[in-house]
Amino acid sequence: MALMHLTIIPLGTGSASVGEYVADIQRALEKSGLPYTLTDMGTAVEGSSKELLILAGQLSEMPFSKGVQRVVTQISLDDRRDKKIELGDKIASVAARLKQ
Amino acid sequence: MALMHLTIIPLGTGSASVGEYVADIQRALEKSGLPYTLTDMGTAVEGSSKELLILAGQLSEMPFSKGVQRVVTQISLDDRRDKKIELGDKIASVAARLKQ
Amino acid sequence: MALMHLTIIPLGTGSASVGEYVADIQRALEKSGLPYTLTDMGTAVEGSSKELLILAGQLSEMPFSKGVQRVVTQISLDDRRDKKIELGDKIASVAARLKQ
Amino acid sequence: MALMHLTIIPLGTGSASVGEYVADIQRALEKSGLPYTLTDMGTAVEGSSKELLILAGQLSEMPFSKGVQRVVTQISLDDRRDKKIELGDKIASVAARLKQ
Repeated sequence: MALMHLTIIPLGTGSASVGEYVADIQRALEKSGLPYTLTDMGTAVEGSSKELLILAGQLSEMPFSKGVQRVVTQISLDDRRDKKIELGDKIASVAARLKQ
Repeated sequence: MALMHLTIIPLGTGSASVGEYVADIQRALEKSGLPYTLTDMGTAVEGSSKELLILAGQLSEMPFSKGVQRVVTQISLDDRRDKKIELGDKIASVAARLKQ
Repeated sequence: MALMHLTIIPLGTGSASVGEYVADIQRALEKSGLPYTLTDMGTAVEGSSKELLILAGQLSEMPFSKGVQRVVTQISLDDRRDKKIELGDKIASVAARLKQ
Repeated sequence: MALMHLTIIPLGTGSASVGEYVADIQRALEKSGLPYTLTDMGTAVEGSSKELLILAGQLSEMPFSKGVQRVVTQISLDDRRDKKIELGDKIASVAARLKQ
């Protein structure tokens, strides 16, 4: 199982704001059925590497349908086979260590 | 004002787990006085670009003091001058759009 | 057409060196048939977004077959629809501007 | 010694092209005195972590002086203490392995 952090940046939109595109992406994430969390710099999603990269491809395609001509997509994939990882695990694990 | 997403990856530790280093980094973030949020893939911090990059340098130095020989640091900096941005703003703004 | 910059980091290998895995990845890139360039921090590849993300998935899978338990993959995808982009174009374009 | 891969993305410029800003950044890199290589997705620079992060801060500031209101900066820092690393080393090392 893997976690992905995804940031999608539309270029040349004429506006410094990208909230319009982010909301579209959130709606698509909701439909994907994969667990996800919106972060201040993008979105964290949980799934298999394969599922996550297919999803990243679909989401990065979305701004083009609104006339955007260039999209930069940043993907960080953390794939672990020694144990199950889920959204929220790392945060809980670090919080527990800090209490020790 | 800017937001930074930071991921610090120690290499060659012999263990797939990095929680030990993440906890150290959280303690240092706490001392920094800058607002921050732990995410599933790293840490989001709020400050000026200059403050954030100095902090990133200090934090990425920390694993070396524990004997790590190589550290990969991923920094995403979102610096905006047309309006004030704070941690939590984007999440609230997208949530509001989704309700429309 | 898009360009991708890809960095694959195996964790917990017990060695700070990752050259062994990078060489495997280069061999697989060679077989992929897509144009690519090795950089100091990863690999740049040219193709459609879809091809590139499928390739990224295949390449990030490779260290697991050598017993690695955790792999962090960093993908930057620059997808442009207003004009054709190829490996080497940006470098040539900036060099031309610098001469003006 | 460390290597940095840096990508600076100006947002809301009204054009999908960013070559104008990239050329400014190359001129500043030239003045910095640090060894660097232009890549298809950004710039690779060699120096100490501290030097590199100060440089990243200076370069990411540049588009603002041209009226850009938002700049996203992606920094990947590979800092190694077990051996000296220089631009070009990894490429040569992988090429040597592929010949074996």
